Amino acid sequence: MEKKKILTGDRPTGKLHLGHYVGSIENRVKLQAEYDCTFIIADLHMLTTKNSTEAIKNSADNAVDMVLDSISAGIDPENVKFYLQSGIPEINEMYTLFQSLITVSRLERVPSLKDMARDANIEMPFALLGYPVLQAADILCIKSHLVPVGKDNVAHVEISREIAKRFNSLYGELFPIPEPLQGKESALIGLYGKQKMSKSANNAIFLSDSPEEVGRKVMKMTTDPNRIRADIPGKVEGNPVFIYHDLFNSDKKEVEELKERYRKGTVGDVEVKEKLSVAINNFLTPFRERREKYQKTGMVEDIILRGTEEVRKEVQQTLYDMKKLMGFTTVVRKLKRKAEKFNEK
Amino acid sequence: MEKKKILTGDRPTGKLHLGHYVGSIENRVKLQAEYDCTFIIADLHMLTTKNSTEAIKNSADNAVDMVLDSISAGIDPENVKFYLQSGIPEINEMYTLFQSLITVSRLERVPSLKDMARDANIEMPFALLGYPVLQAADILCIKSHLVPVGKDNVAHVEISREIAKRFNSLYGELFPIPEPLQGKESALIGLYGKQKMSKSANNAIFLSDSPEEVGRKVMKMTTDPNRIRADIPGKVEGNPVFIYHDLFNSDKKEVEELKERYRKGTVGDVEVKEKLSVAINNFLTPFRERREKYQKTGMVEDIILRGTEEVRKEVQQTLYDMKKLMGFTTVVRKLKRKAEKFNEK
Repeated sequence: MEKKKILTGDRPTGKLHLGHYVGSIENRVKLQAEYDCTFIIADLHMLTTKNSTEAIKNSADNAVDMVLDSISAGIDPENVKFYLQSGIPEINEMYTLFQSLITVSRLERVPSLKDMARDANIEMPFALLGYPVLQAADILCIKSHLVPVGKDNVAHVEISREIAKRFNSLYGELFPIPEPLQGKESALIGLYGKQKMSKSANNAIFLSDSPEEVGRKVMKMTTDPNRIRADIPGKVEGNPVFIYHDLFNSDKKEVEELKERYRKGTVGDVEVKEKLSVAINNFLTPFRERREKYQKTGMVEDIILRGTEEVRKEVQQTLYDMKKLMGFTTVVRKLKRKAEKFNEK
Repeated sequence: MEKKKILTGDRPTGKLHLGHYVGSIENRVKLQAEYDCTFIIADLHMLTTKNSTEAIKNSADNAVDMVLDSISAGIDPENVKFYLQSGIPEINEMYTLFQSLITVSRLERVPSLKDMARDANIEMPFALLGYPVLQAADILCIKSHLVPVGKDNVAHVEISREIAKRFNSLYGELFPIPEPLQGKESALIGLYGKQKMSKSANNAIFLSDSPEEVGRKVMKMTTDPNRIRADIPGKVEGNPVFIYHDLFNSDKKEVEELKERYRKGTVGDVEVKEKLSVAINNFLTPFRERREKYQKTGMVEDIILRGTEEVRKEVQQTLYDMKKLMGFTTVVRKLKRKAEKFNEK
């Protein structure tokens, strides 16, 4: 039996951090064994909320960083495909054709789009209202069965489902109806508590950070603010250092001992942090080994370009099938056949 | 000095009639001398209000009928280009890229779109709201300077102007700002008065009708309904037969005499109609001669395919320039350059 297909991916925004790992990459690493996984580098989606040549021009470097980080985290490039969205022009054709299958009012009922416009402080661009339709093209162009999503994106996959159903019923069976695959919803708290980890908040440990950088960042972390001396009993719950210990320290016994001593006031922050540093660096050791193997000049670029080429062939076939069902191939065939007769004479 | 460029065209709905001639073709025949004219066969626009495989599949035959009729009416295929919209996939890419340059609320203020949805008795499809944006791609993909329009379409060209201006100011000067070229607004009344001439109202004389068909149709025309006998004075104004005499009878003296006798009640309907029949057939004689020359099997198909190929090259260059200004070419160049280094080793 063939493996079911999964489409997932991100806009090319750059280096990945532990927040990305916990939020999605960890899950993707698990999925790649069971499913046929394709990863989109969604550079066209950068235009949904802003127009910036800087962001576009940087997206090659950002894409490379992102893919190398994914590989270092355990995504196996021999087993999955990465593709650059703007490198497959056929996606735009599908996007145009899908636009007749969904109404404006239906798209206006997708709540996340209004939020995105509000967050970007802009009036809703036409491109943003079409965002879930372009996503439908991303998903359906490879006939994906499953789409891993966070809570917000279930509504987007629902648009893909409606478009696939409407196409199949109007023009003929072509697309599987994609299902959202909801994982655990997990945002990682940043180094200084309060905000979640993000590049822009400057509170992140990147997957590519050196052991020394990890050490320095961990030393600056926020702990229990009420614990002004090491002999004061501290709070473990919601404390970033212990959240990280729970997630990244494989020595569970050490973690339990540290928690107990912290609660009693018999361990200093420095010791807790030093042990966290060691734990995170141990956690990242296999990442660094894989990174070393794949960071040769041009290797990741090659992976992206080959993946794009391979996926493009698939998409061209799907587009052809789509246009055939819709009747567009008949138009060209009829014109060509008769034009040939004319030229034969 | 180079001629200014004009983009005009229609959805491929089939044979043209005298109403089309008076409404737009006559004007186009004049424009082709002064301007560099390109005609779009807008088959993708058929999806803005309906989804029908029948309409799409028939669009090859309809396109051929339409182009042959245009040529018979005096459009010179040696001088202008015809292109099939769905035969230039790059238009879809431009359409996607333009979508970030215009807001939903701006498009909702285009009045004709709501009318089209209401007339088709449908909720506004996303494709219909995007119709003027896809038109912007049609117009700007060949860097057109002028767009002949009816009153309704001035608002559509305004969208193209805004998109062109926004692109130029955000990414760099690329597109001329297209101007609407308003001709006289002239719908032709149908054979039986009241409604305007249209295929669906079954009240049309087609450019391809034979002399006998023209004769038969003219004989069935409605005249002054109050004139039940030839000796009753009749009304010339608003009378379809005299409207047609004014438009198509080159013998102005004959027309004046007939009008005078009609007003006095000294001419029968049959004589007026017989003379109209002769006049229309005289008017159509050069149309029929050109039709004969161009209706060889495959000749019009060849004209459409060659035109599409030629225009496509132009569009590919414009798209390349566009993506270069936006930064997308940098992405691919960077990836390729480094991937090559990897493969050289």
